[in-house]
Parts: sequence; C-alpha cells; structure tokens
Amino acid sequence: MTKLTLTPRQRLYQIIFGTSTRFGQWFDIALIIAIISSEIILIISSVASIESQYPHLLVIAEWSFTILFTIEYILRLYCSPRPLAYMRSFYGVIDLMAILPAYIAFLIPGSNYLLIIRLIRVLRIFRVLKLARFLKDSNILLRSLRHAQRKIVVFFSSVLILVTVFGSLMFIIEGPANGFTSIPKSIYWAIVTITTVGYGDIVPHTVMGKALASLTMLLGYSILAVPTGIITAELNQEMKTHRGLIRCPNCATSGHEMDAEYCKKCGTQLPETL
Amino acid sequence: MTKLTLTPRQRLYQIIFGTSTRFGQWFDIALIIAIISSEIILIISSVASIESQYPHLLVIAEWSFTILFTIEYILRLYCSPRPLAYMRSFYGVIDLMAILPAYIAFLIPGSNYLLIIRLIRVLRIFRVLKLARFLKDSNILLRSLRHAQRKIVVFFSSVLILVTVFGSLMFIIEGPANGFTSIPKSIYWAIVTITTVGYGDIVPHTVMGKALASLTMLLGYSILAVPTGIITAELNQEMKTHRGLIRCPNCATSGHEMDAEYCKKCGTQLPETL
Amino acid sequence: MTKLTLTPRQRLYQIIFGTSTRFGQWFDIALIIAIISSEIILIISSVASIESQYPHLLVIAEWSFTILFTIEYILRLYCSPRPLAYMRSFYGVIDLMAILPAYIAFLIPGSNYLLIIRLIRVLRIFRVLKLARFLKDSNILLRSLRHAQRKIVVFFSSVLILVTVFGSLMFIIEGPANGFTSIPKSIYWAIVTITTVGYGDIVPHTVMGKALASLTMLLGYSILAVPTGIITAELNQEMKTHRGLIRCPNCATSGHEMDAEYCKKCGTQLPETL
Amino acid sequence: MTKLTLTPRQRLYQIIFGTSTRFGQWFDIALIIAIISSEIILIISSVASIESQYPHLLVIAEWSFTILFTIEYILRLYCSPRPLAYMRSFYGVIDLMAILPAYIAFLIPGSNYLLIIRLIRVLRIFRVLKLARFLKDSNILLRSLRHAQRKIVVFFSSVLILVTVFGSLMFIIEGPANGFTSIPKSIYWAIVTITTVGYGDIVPHTVMGKALASLTMLLGYSILAVPTGIITAELNQEMKTHRGLIRCPNCATSGHEMDAEYCKKCGTQLPETL
Repeated sequence: MTKLTLTPRQRLYQIIFGTSTRFGQWFDIALIIAIISSEIILIISSVASIESQYPHLLVIAEWSFTILFTIEYILRLYCSPRPLAYMRSFYGVIDLMAILPAYIAFLIPGSNYLLIIRLIRVLRIFRVLKLARFLKDSNILLRSLRHAQRKIVVFFSSVLILVTVFGSLMFIIEGPANGFTSIPKSIYWAIVTITTVGYGDIVPHTVMGKALASLTMLLGYSILAVPTGIITAELNQEMKTHRGLIRCPNCATSGHEMDAEYCKKCGTQLPETL
Repeated sequence: MTKLTLTPRQRLYQIIFGTSTRFGQWFDIALIIAIISSEIILIISSVASIESQYPHLLVIAEWSFTILFTIEYILRLYCSPRPLAYMRSFYGVIDLMAILPAYIAFLIPGSNYLLIIRLIRVLRIFRVLKLARFLKDSNILLRSLRHAQRKIVVFFSSVLILVTVFGSLMFIIEGPANGFTSIPKSIYWAIVTITTVGYGDIVPHTVMGKALASLTMLLGYSILAVPTGIITAELNQEMKTHRGLIRCPNCATSGHEMDAEYCKKCGTQLPETL
Repeated sequence: MTKLTLTPRQRLYQIIFGTSTRFGQWFDIALIIAIISSEIILIISSVASIESQYPHLLVIAEWSFTILFTIEYILRLYCSPRPLAYMRSFYGVIDLMAILPAYIAFLIPGSNYLLIIRLIRVLRIFRVLKLARFLKDSNILLRSLRHAQRKIVVFFSSVLILVTVFGSLMFIIEGPANGFTSIPKSIYWAIVTITTVGYGDIVPHTVMGKALASLTMLLGYSILAVPTGIITAELNQEMKTHRGLIRCPNCATSGHEMDAEYCKKCGTQLPETL
Repeated sequence: MTKLTLTPRQRLYQIIFGTSTRFGQWFDIALIIAIISSEIILIISSVASIESQYPHLLVIAEWSFTILFTIEYILRLYCSPRPLAYMRSFYGVIDLMAILPAYIAFLIPGSNYLLIIRLIRVLRIFRVLKLARFLKDSNILLRSLRHAQRKIVVFFSSVLILVTVFGSLMFIIEGPANGFTSIPKSIYWAIVTITTVGYGDIVPHTVMGKALASLTMLLGYSILAVPTGIITAELNQEMKTHRGLIRCPNCATSGHEMDAEYCKKCGTQLPETL
C-alpha cells in the first residue's frame, strides 16, 4: 500500500541508490558486472597485439559502456532528492571521473593527444572502488586501522626519516660512480631495501656501501615487525569487543566469548554481526 | 572372533581405506613412500643431463610406479562398498589423475606430443596431497583460517583493486618505452612489488615512476601487516578455545588454561588434543 | 603579572626552548618548516641536472638557512640558563652538527675537497630528528621496544651467527668462480637472502649452492616471524596496561578496559592518553 | 676452607667448565674473545687482496689460535671427571671440530687440497655457538618455538608440497626455453618466489607463467602470515605464563601480571626471571 504512493522518481531512487528492494539489489549487481566488464575490455585493449587485431570491436565496447555509465549518472542526478549533494559526495565525484576522460578524448581532436588521453581513461578503474559498498565485513578491519591510525603515523614518520638518512649516507659512500646519482635516487634505493622488495636495479658496490646496506636490511627486517604488531594488537582487541557487544536476540545478554555461536544464558543462536 | 566374520573384500577395505589395523597403517606408510619415490624419479628425470644417462632405468621405474598405482586404484574400486561415491570424491579424482597422464602418453603415438604429455604427468604430484590425511594437528591451523575466511576475502579484494589501480597508473606514467608494455604486465609488476618479491625484471625508470613505486612499496609494507594480524588474532583465540574445550579424562572438568598439562581439579594428566 | 617580571633573556628562553606559550609553539613550527625546506633544497641540489641550471640560487638558499640556524644556535646558547649543559646534550650536539659542515667547507679552500665536504653536509638531516619532540604518541611503541630489548638482542645475535655460518658455507660451496669472492661478501649475500631483500647481484649457480640458498630462504622466512611475535606480544601487553592505568578525571577509578571511552563507574569521558 | 680441599685438577675444572667463580667467568669471557678474534682473522684471510699482502701474519695468527684451542681441548679432557662423556657431548664434538681441520691441512701435503681443506676450517665458526651458554634470556623464545613445533612442522610440510606443485606447474608452462630447465630448478624458483626473496635470476616470460607467478606471490604473501601467527600466539601465552609463575621472594605470592615489577601483596620487588 505504502509502495503505491511512491512517485516514479522515488521508485527510481530506491532502485539506483538503495539496496533494500529486490530491484535495487539487481541493479547494483548488474552495475558491478558492467564495471568489471568495462575494466577487462580496457585492460585487454592496452595489449598492443590484441588491439591491432580487433580495433573496432574494442572501441565499440568501450563506448557502449561509457554511454551506459553516462545514462546511469544522469539518472542518479535526476532521481536524487539532493543532486548537488550527490555530485559533491565521494561517490558522485568518482562516478563523474569514470565517464569524463572518454568525452575529453572525443571532444579534442588530434590523434597523438587522443592516445595519451585514452590511457588516462584507465582511471575509470576507481569506479571499481564502489565494490566497497558491498563489503560490510570490512568494518572490523577498518575500525582496527582507524584505532591504530596515530601509531601508524608515528611509525611511518620514523620510516621516512630513516629512509632519508640512510639514502643520504649511501649517496656519500657510494656516489654517482656506483649508480647512486642523486639523493632522491638513493632514497628510492633505501625504500626498495627497507621494504625488502630488493629490485636489484641499484646495488652497493663498495665494501662500506655493502656494510651500510646490510645494516639497512637488518633494520628493515626488524622494523617490519612493528606495523604487524600494531595491527595485530588492535585487531585482537577489536575482535574481542565486537563479539562481546553482540546482544542475544532472545534474552539480551551481552559479553559473549569471541567464538560463541549460541547465547550462554538461553542457547539462542547469536547473530553474526552487530 | 568378530574379525573372522569379515569377508576378504571387507578385510581389503580395512587395509586400504582404514588406518585402525596394523596392516592398514603399514599399507598407508608404504603408499606414501611409493608416492614420494615416484615423485623423486619424476623430478630427477626432468633434469636433461641425468635423463640422457639413464633413459631406460627412469622409464622402467616410472612405469613400475604407474602400474602399482593402477593396481591400487582398481583394488580401491573393488573393495569400496560404494565405488561410485569413491570415484567422485576428492581423493578418488586425485587417485585417477595420478595414473591417467601416463596412459594418455602411451595410447596416442607421436614422439613430440608424448614429450609434452609426459610433462603433464608431473601433476601426479597432487598425489602427495594425500599426506594431509596424516596431519591431524593441522586442525587448529585450518579452523583459524576458516574463521578468518571472510576477513581474508575482504583483504584480498582490496589488494586486487590496489594492484589494478597502481598497475594502470604505472602504465600511464612509465609506458611501453620503459618495459610497461601493457596493463596486465603493469599489474604483474604491481603484484611483484606489493608482495615485496621484487624480481627486478620490470623496474620504473622515470622520476614519477620511481615515486609511485616507492608509494606502492610502502603501502605493500604496511598491508603485509593486515593478514598477519588477522591470522594471529584468530589463532590466539582458537588456541585458547581449543585447550579450554579439553575435558579431564578422570573428572570431566573443562575450561583449563592454555598451557595446562594437568587437570586443575584432580591433577590427572590432560590429553594433548581433543 | 608574573609575566612582566620575566627578563628578555628568560622570555627568549620560553620562546626558543619552551612549547607552553603561543610564541614558543610558533617558533618550533617555523623551525620545523625551515629544517624541512633546507633539507629539500639539499636533496634537490644533489641532482646534477638541477644544480647545473640554478647553481647560484641553490647556494644562496643553502647559505641563508645555514646563517639562520647559526643565529638560532647562538641565541640558544645565550638564553639557556646552563649553556654548557645544552651544548653537551643530545640536541645541542645535533644542532651544532647541522651547521658545522657548511663552515668547514667555507674555511678550507680547494674546490675538490669542498665538493666532498658539501656531501657530508647531508648529515644535517639528523636535524629533522628533532621532530621526535612532537611525537608524544610514540611512547607506547618505544616502551614496547624497550621491554622487548633483551629478546631482540638474543634474536639478533642468533641471526648474526646464522648469517656468518651460512655465508661461510656458501663461500666453500660456490667459491670465487661464482661471485662469492670472499667470506664478507658471502655474509652480505646471506643477509640479503635471510632478510628476503634478494637483490640478485650475487646468486648461487651450482646445484648444491641452490639447495643451501633454498634452506637459507625457508629459514629466513620462519625467522621473520620471531621479531614480529616478540613485538606483537609486548605491544599487546603494553596497550592493555596503558589503558588500565588511565584514571577517570571525575571519580579516579582506574583499570578500565582497553577500548573503554567512558568511566565504568560514573560515565565520565576518559582522557585519550596518560 | 672448603676451597683449600680442592685438588688442582678440580680447581681447573671449576675455571674451565664452571662459571660460578670469578676465574671461571674470566676464562669464559677470554675464550669468547679468542673465538671471535680467530673468526675475524679467518674471514679477513678469505679476502684475496688482504691475504696476498700479509700472508705470513695471517698464517701465524691462525696457527696461534689453533694451538691455543688445542691446549684448551687437552685441558678440558684432563680436568673433566668423565672425559669420554665430554668428548661425546654436543660441545665436545664442536670443540674438536674447531681444531681438527687445521691439523688435517697440516698433515696431508699437496697445496691444492690444502686450499680446499682450509676453507672447511670456516666450520670453526660453529665454535661461536658456544655463545648460547651465555644467553639465558633465550629460554622464553626457545620454549615458545618448542611448543609451536608440531604446528611449524605441519606448516612447513604444506609449504614444501606447495613449492613442489607450483615449481612443476611452472616447468610445464615455461619450459627449458625460458630458463626453467628442470623441475629442481623450478622448485628453487618457487622457493625464491614464495619466500618473497625474488632474486630475479629465473623469471617467467610467458603470459601464463606470469599469471601463475602472480598467484604464487599472493599465496606466499598470505602464507607468510601463518608462522608469524603461530609464534606470536605461543609467545603471547609463554610470556603470560612465565611472569605468572614467578613467586614473590617475601610472601611467595604467584600469579602476578605480566608487567608487574613489585609483588601485588607485599610490594617486594619481583625477580626478573624464574
């Protein structure tokens, strides 16, 4: 009954923005499939050999998706009760960024520039970030990270200072003759080393340089333990709290054990999440 | 007495499928030794210099094991009370996959094709996975991983999105001139970097590229902490629960401390596992 | 009223050394901006192409900062109630080291030497370490590390012994022909491998060498878990204790849960830190 | 008084084997200094350029230490109440292995062989392992590792199976043309990749190979979390238990908090270790 009182615009809003109705869920699933498909086509079209084989097919497929997403964006603006607020929101900006590069490439002539701009279109990938809407289970992870925020900032500041100091020392020791041509490049080496990535494109050649590199590695090795410790400790606590806060739907008892599946008072099955 | 009432087929079932009788245990141990031996021969025969020295010996050894495993497979089908259910089970399929490649290579003539098919035979390695049957202590690990399942999915989705975004950005910045010939290849680079493997086969050359690579590394560095945190927190909880669930064999008291070796009520030694 | 009784020297002390007054805070913020700016100029001037373009500009900028920091150092000595104690303190030494290399380069003539000494000036980066004064939240991290101190020493001694043993074994197995020209170089390889950095500049070529390298890697892999375990366990405990020590500002109740935001007795909001 | 009743042999035993007397402690410290000095000389003499400069000096230094350690070994045999038990003990064998290679090189003539045997002398490094005697604080770490033993075995078996499977698959996909010349070499690649070392000496070249390598890396990435989780959980528990077991030296109260420094009952300072 209440359903019939909705205007077509309100219904459209329910389908496009909401996930409570069946059509709203279908729309979102279809959207995600469309986003991933357009991404796959974009990735495939970046492979030179494939693009030269099916040039028209890929262009048509890309434009179909661009037009589809444009219609979707217009409909969002139309049915939203506050279109300006939507446009300025995080998802509004991403929705626009997912279609704009295609039109910029279309409007401005000049084949060479078009090629470069087409590559910028890969930023449409940010559209995929919409997926985050579906990941409700990521809450525990995010809350742990938010709690650990300040400790992570302290940690990263220390890492940046260390990397600058070690990079500069390496620049003095090894010098441009051994590939350490400037301090920024030496800092790049220090980051590659301290994160244990170790490309091997810049490598110490002198004995002193190797000794300093060894120190950097052993330091990076032990430093790696700090963020892990921070996040584990937070996550540990978050998981305990999270479970403890769940109330039994029958008798409202809270403070259950982390692995509890049934209420300890009345045996009713507990809900998975808050 | 009850033992004598078993038919030969039932006895065979007890030996081949069971591990409760002495012969059943011996059979399984012999089987594992045979599997590992056949794997070692397969691995050795892949070394070109050794194969050219003892070509006949290795072929004979391989075929002996293939025939042995074939007989074993037929016996399993014969003695199983429900042969079709066995064939369709996980181990049934693996048991068949462990012998089939050898016969496919035998039936179809043509030396070149045979060579390729012989390599597919290395899939027989999956046979070794049977070892898992003996690892009862892996339960705690597996249960922790199962509990952390959803968090790990959330985490891996985030990693995949990040890797696609960073790979595409790198493709725009560095381009085919610096080895980033396509987006899939750039995503491969991003995975190599974010997992801190760092082969060094594809490496940024421009200043902007190096800056983005540094960001990717530092991100990968801190991201590495998340799965560790998840698994540690789950394992921590799992170990507490696991020990707490053990009941004293004498007075049936449960809820012991994780490191308890004796019952806190009556002093009876507690069993190691549930 | 009390404010007017301060001599100009005492006021200067309050501004330069203190952070309690508004001017004191502004001075410290301005100082940090100046330090980071001078560091950026130093890093930029190490890039050969940029330096050749703006040689005078960079020299002038560097000297401006050097003179600024010299005036600051003199003012610190002037207004400090105990100038000698300041000079001998950790920050006093760093403050002097941040200006001295510039003057040493100035006093001694000879262009070649000047170039080398200019590089030593990058040690001025240590000046940035003053940032640590602002990071009060780093206390939990530092206390955890201090508690874990002895375990970390034990761990690092084991790593050093392992690295020496594996490096020496690799020197015997691979030898100078395969790039392992001396034991120190082989130890360098072992550190590169056990920390999972893996530059790939020195790599085993023989079968035996590869087997030993595989063992080293798997060992390094599992060893990596030990410092993480140590720091996580300490941090876990430290965070529990830290929160438990906070007293309610209203009723002075302590022993709150780690995630408590309000006093469990009177509901007053708890302070963030001790 | 009791001291005077000791025979010279018993006194020697107290000095060489014991650490309770002042001379016993001095002897052990001197021994460690001698071991490290002989190791440094050995490491230095492996550097070709240094050895050619001071050939006699290094030979003399090496022989001095060898003779010193030989005298020490003879004295140990002489003063030990049960010389045969000492000889067969772990330290007895290491003590012999630390001097034997030098004499073997001396007795058998032939310069080429001598060179090889001299290298085997680096095994004398194991002598340094005696240091472990001084590291009593390593007990917590060792006990944690012993408790986690079975889980680590399960984990390493899984890693070995994974590495064999992925190595073989890579051998089929990439083949000898792309550097994966045999299954053992491919397994070596899989270990280099899964441990995130990533030398880059063997690297996938085909698209399929890169896809499989990406999978291997992401797997290795998440697998890395498991041993950390195991050791952290054990260490966490071990530290709690360890502290809880300490008894107050005044009132014998146990069950103190992990970070307790004073007895919660009577305020007496608690001992550091059990």
